[in-house]
Amino acid sequence: MIKVPRGLAGVSVADTGISRSSPDGTLLYRGYPITEMAAKAGFEETAYLILNGSLPKKGELELFSSELRRLAPVDGKTLGVMRELGSGANPIDAIRTACSALGSFDSGKSVSERETSLEAKMSVLAANSLRVPRGQPPRHPDDALRFSDSLLQMLTDKPATEYERWVFERILIFYMEHDLNASSFTVRVVASTLADPCAAVTAGLAALKGPLHGGANEAAMEMLLEVKDPSMAKEYIGRAVKQGQKVIGFGHRVYKEFDPRARICKGYLKEMTSRRGDDGLFLLCEAIEREMWERKRIPPNLDYYAAPIFYLLGIEVPLYTPIFAASRVFGWMAHYNEQVSENKLIRPDSDYVGPSGLSYTPIEKR
Amino acid sequence: MIKVPRGLAGVSVADTGISRSSPDGTLLYRGYPITEMAAKAGFEETAYLILNGSLPKKGELELFSSELRRLAPVDGKTLGVMRELGSGANPIDAIRTACSALGSFDSGKSVSERETSLEAKMSVLAANSLRVPRGQPPRHPDDALRFSDSLLQMLTDKPATEYERWVFERILIFYMEHDLNASSFTVRVVASTLADPCAAVTAGLAALKGPLHGGANEAAMEMLLEVKDPSMAKEYIGRAVKQGQKVIGFGHRVYKEFDPRARICKGYLKEMTSRRGDDGLFLLCEAIEREMWERKRIPPNLDYYAAPIFYLLGIEVPLYTPIFAASRVFGWMAHYNEQVSENKLIRPDSDYVGPSGLSYTPIEKR
Repeated sequence: MIKVPRGLAGVSVADTGISRSSPDGTLLYRGYPITEMAAKAGFEETAYLILNGSLPKKGELELFSSELRRLAPVDGKTLGVMRELGSGANPIDAIRTACSALGSFDSGKSVSERETSLEAKMSVLAANSLRVPRGQPPRHPDDALRFSDSLLQMLTDKPATEYERWVFERILIFYMEHDLNASSFTVRVVASTLADPCAAVTAGLAALKGPLHGGANEAAMEMLLEVKDPSMAKEYIGRAVKQGQKVIGFGHRVYKEFDPRARICKGYLKEMTSRRGDDGLFLLCEAIEREMWERKRIPPNLDYYAAPIFYLLGIEVPLYTPIFAASRVFGWMAHYNEQVSENKLIRPDSDYVGPSGLSYTPIEKR
Repeated sequence: MIKVPRGLAGVSVADTGISRSSPDGTLLYRGYPITEMAAKAGFEETAYLILNGSLPKKGELELFSSELRRLAPVDGKTLGVMRELGSGANPIDAIRTACSALGSFDSGKSVSERETSLEAKMSVLAANSLRVPRGQPPRHPDDALRFSDSLLQMLTDKPATEYERWVFERILIFYMEHDLNASSFTVRVVASTLADPCAAVTAGLAALKGPLHGGANEAAMEMLLEVKDPSMAKEYIGRAVKQGQKVIGFGHRVYKEFDPRARICKGYLKEMTSRRGDDGLFLLCEAIEREMWERKRIPPNLDYYAAPIFYLLGIEVPLYTPIFAASRVFGWMAHYNEQVSENKLIRPDSDYVGPSGLSYTPIEKR
């Protein structure tokens, strides 16, 4: 029996060609640095890359994009399942339940169509995860728009500038994939039983419900709204550090110096606030970041700088984790397919530390 | 980086005091041999033991049993979510979707009540997982009955003899827990994010959807129905072995000589068929078992001998895996609580085997 650290940190459980994050602040998507992808790529071609291993040619991209558009609309029955949950439902609970239901509705189609359908529909589920349980009418995807524009439109129902839409697409690209995080590992464990994609993604969404994995972008925004003013950063962080409180949005399992995605997002936030003529939110973020670095040498992560951008775009805070899901589903499916293509059931062992050889005693003698 | 076998066989990822299965054909529940529990214990006290680590005193058992009865009824909204899936829905999809929805409805109650509620309701979801999506009226638990009797009543709506009800309870006890099988490990991975019990159990149900984990008792019964007659066993197994086909219901990751649960169930089946004055099904099972042992030295597992017992009890075949879920939920919750009580996020690493340092090429140059 091989005994490994609990939590499996530093334990390689799979070979993967999908992505690699390194402590030096690099992140590769199928070999391409995230800096390159952020500067030059669109969401659909990045998704194609993550799923298929190479950048699409023109015809491949057109086909993939049109399939995503065609399969995006979510039927009334699935939205009805979400509505049934009622206002007050946690959006991730709502998406998970709807995704689980999709597994039942979609069972007749081809494997590849079911996968694309799930990827396409996750955006619609995400955008409706707050409003439909509340009883508001659903918002539907616009097939004249690119993937990220359609999602943003469903999330806010407001116009956004071209730059803002471009930035939103970058953030979706950043959230798409990050090697064996807890949800992607969950997806692989379930995939290893040869369960269908909807089952595996439902399990991934279950992992995303946990505060140690999902929800950080929402919590980061709540902190920013609480601190409010750059001048309060010193006091707030000082108190948090003194009380041994974890400051959400800082620190990363892999990136110890800097998270490349956060660094790029910081630039976007600066530009966005400057174009809007009010850089208050940027200065607040920077002040907290500076305090955290000076006191703890902990850098901000993606969630920290994605949150204020979502905020400026007018997206309700409880939708930030659903946005993660709408993008990460492509990474999940890449892990699903990689696991299944060379499958071995993931069935670990354990050290038994309980008693042995006890004898049953009748209840009256206990 | 520690590299471990893919599939994690022989890799100890957790300390557990819940159960231990050993290659010599022993299985301990919190230190008690399964043979002892099968001979002497009731379902509720076994569930209490698995959850709490010790056999209950009289007052503890009464309280636990009455809570299970009180919390069992499933509301119309949750059953409505199941009905929405429509006839043709896979029962495990239906239970998973309903369980996911419960996570939303139950969010206000105390942790302990939510856990017991989930455990209690799983039986009702399991028993209704075929009929409610078909549009048939739901069957409700009878709070005058013991846990296993109420479940059997909901499953069949037929009277059963005292011996048969006793046997059914034994099988539920056998299905309750089996260390780090794929679904229990999935539950622990999700629990490690500190997601709530409903999220974790939803993920466990997702793993149970996979044919490498769930469904074996159903497939075993289908084989028995196909072979039909003991005289056909030789030919059937001969052909399967020749074609390199896996024979469902045989073999186990841990038990190489015999599965203690299967051995006990075989005795029950013999007694049941003899009391009914028709031992055809028993002789069929025995003939196939003999062939498999002579040709492959592979013993039958629990699923193989549970299936014909469920069949004789008049339970529809697609409900066999739901019964597994109705019992295993207690094991899942024990793993959930053990994981959370000394938690570390389960977040493994991987070996990156993809390319590096690629440069983005514009689409027209690909």
